[in-house]
Amino acid sequence: MKLASLKNGRDGKLVIVSNDLTRYTDAGRVAPTLQAALDDWENIAPALNELAQGLETGSVPVERFHEREAASPLPRAYQWADGSAYINHVELVRKARNAEVPDSFYEDPLMYQGGSDAFLGPRDDILMPQDQGWGIDMEGEIAVITGDVPMGVAADEAGDYIRLVMLVNDVSLRGLIPGELAKGFGFFQSKPSSAFSPVAVTPDALGDAWKDNALHLPLLVRYNGKPFGQANAGKDLTFNFGQLIAHAAKSRPLCAGTIIGSGTVSNKLNGGPGKPIAEGGDGYSCIAEIRMIETIENGKATTPFMSFGDTVQIKMKDGDGRSIFGAIEQRVAKYEH
Amino acid sequence: MKLASLKNGRDGKLVIVSNDLTRYTDAGRVAPTLQAALDDWENIAPALNELAQGLETGSVPVERFHEREAASPLPRAYQWADGSAYINHVELVRKARNAEVPDSFYEDPLMYQGGSDAFLGPRDDILMPQDQGWGIDMEGEIAVITGDVPMGVAADEAGDYIRLVMLVNDVSLRGLIPGELAKGFGFFQSKPSSAFSPVAVTPDALGDAWKDNALHLPLLVRYNGKPFGQANAGKDLTFNFGQLIAHAAKSRPLCAGTIIGSGTVSNKLNGGPGKPIAEGGDGYSCIAEIRMIETIENGKATTPFMSFGDTVQIKMKDGDGRSIFGAIEQRVAKYEH
Repeated sequence: MKLASLKNGRDGKLVIVSNDLTRYTDAGRVAPTLQAALDDWENIAPALNELAQGLETGSVPVERFHEREAASPLPRAYQWADGSAYINHVELVRKARNAEVPDSFYEDPLMYQGGSDAFLGPRDDILMPQDQGWGIDMEGEIAVITGDVPMGVAADEAGDYIRLVMLVNDVSLRGLIPGELAKGFGFFQSKPSSAFSPVAVTPDALGDAWKDNALHLPLLVRYNGKPFGQANAGKDLTFNFGQLIAHAAKSRPLCAGTIIGSGTVSNKLNGGPGKPIAEGGDGYSCIAEIRMIETIENGKATTPFMSFGDTVQIKMKDGDGRSIFGAIEQRVAKYEH
Repeated sequence: MKLASLKNGRDGKLVIVSNDLTRYTDAGRVAPTLQAALDDWENIAPALNELAQGLETGSVPVERFHEREAASPLPRAYQWADGSAYINHVELVRKARNAEVPDSFYEDPLMYQGGSDAFLGPRDDILMPQDQGWGIDMEGEIAVITGDVPMGVAADEAGDYIRLVMLVNDVSLRGLIPGELAKGFGFFQSKPSSAFSPVAVTPDALGDAWKDNALHLPLLVRYNGKPFGQANAGKDLTFNFGQLIAHAAKSRPLCAGTIIGSGTVSNKLNGGPGKPIAEGGDGYSCIAEIRMIETIENGKATTPFMSFGDTVQIKMKDGDGRSIFGAIEQRVAKYEH
């Protein structure tokens, strides 16, 4: 089953989208918003599933689905907690800011509490008051939306609480990160609003691509129209979503609608850092990584962070080349107060 | 105007509470929940105010208000961002964990993104799987709920977006903090669910006690039934709520219903750390502070963190000795998975 929230008020209008992303049917008579569906998932999911079947067989009213009309599946959420499951990204980014990879990394996930009150839509501009100095970067990631998760859930049971899977652009302000982390309280201003894919998908609808609480397909990132990354989200991850959810729920329950992110998807190449796609590698899901590799190889970073007008596209294709989640497509633009 | 959310489903039932906290009237015909009211405050606040006047004059149906029936005013919220406005607390707690107070502290607020998906009610037990080693502590604070705040708002305009004021118990797990902060991503497991006062109050209803975007009254903390703290929230604060909101909104807008906290209220005494109430001081709003002072004075901390069965009460009285927000009253108890 594939769900989307068409832009409508603060929380969008819940619709069910066809597997090929061309059509939708209104889910309003079952649940007005995705949060409402998640709040009562056990009762509501069967009715949504029935509508989804009707959508495929043509037995319910359908409309043309336009990705550009979608808000993020949860336009605002009660929780956005982002992990850092891909060690390659952690190693490169920490090197880039002269920070250590903590010894505990392999057993204890890195995770930060993100702002969840005002997400961007998948086609919304990334509005920033300035583009120089703040180090505007994208981070291509996978995320899951959970049901109600009890405090203390075990990692091998936590996967049962995954309701939906989607893609994320976790916009990051690299220029603000070092100063902010030096204060000791984690990210705040350096993590502005994130954007999610137009469509969220139930794990069962992902088929073989979803196993061991992870998504095993390349995350396709284009930067200014050119292929930039195709790292496989099923490779080189130290923690799966079961482990990330269990980490988040160690000392508190998680409310239905909690979004847990994977961190930037990143693959190694022969045990070391990867190469650009143009050089036969799988590229990167953020600019910080290529800058670090440039620094290692040439002594300095030459790829700049994003400026006004730069664009990013993040999507994922199934085995037959069809887009699964729709595309995040964003442009950096000037915010006028 | 005083508002509360009676326990009812996930988001409570919005009621208007009389100034003396003895009666309420249902606000359901105006807005079912506090979040719904905040989402359309300009249109809804006038109708709520009218009901509040009717409640005082007896022209609307009333019921007896019991604080124990209240959830936190927002039982779950889209954002909980907690500052650290009181330098005395920052100095003492950082000394306690051998961390530096950052040089930037006086111009750049400390603030962390907290979990907002599952708050405790003001009389709910603080359920934890263990009481030894985790260092369970309370933190008595002031918090405000904002309307929609535009990105980049100036500190001297940010106060205009404050809709409501309330008290907080920002439960903290001191035993988990050093390890978590060492990882560099801020608090997560070390900040479990917080609880808020039964009643949230509009700034205008606070009279002279609300000025310069701060609340100028003592925060009364009782620990296991004995007076523990009476630090004045209007003293020794480095940042007011206008400055904290502006900090939070530097790189993103804030959605209506955002909660911004002051950090633990803490007063100096003659320019240095305070004394216990029993010794003529104003005491403390958390246990970590008294432990640090014990360490400074006697070489080791003797007051333990909270164990199962320990209780905390947090409230505030107006000039006539009447409770303004109702009382947070919580007991630490064992969580059974």
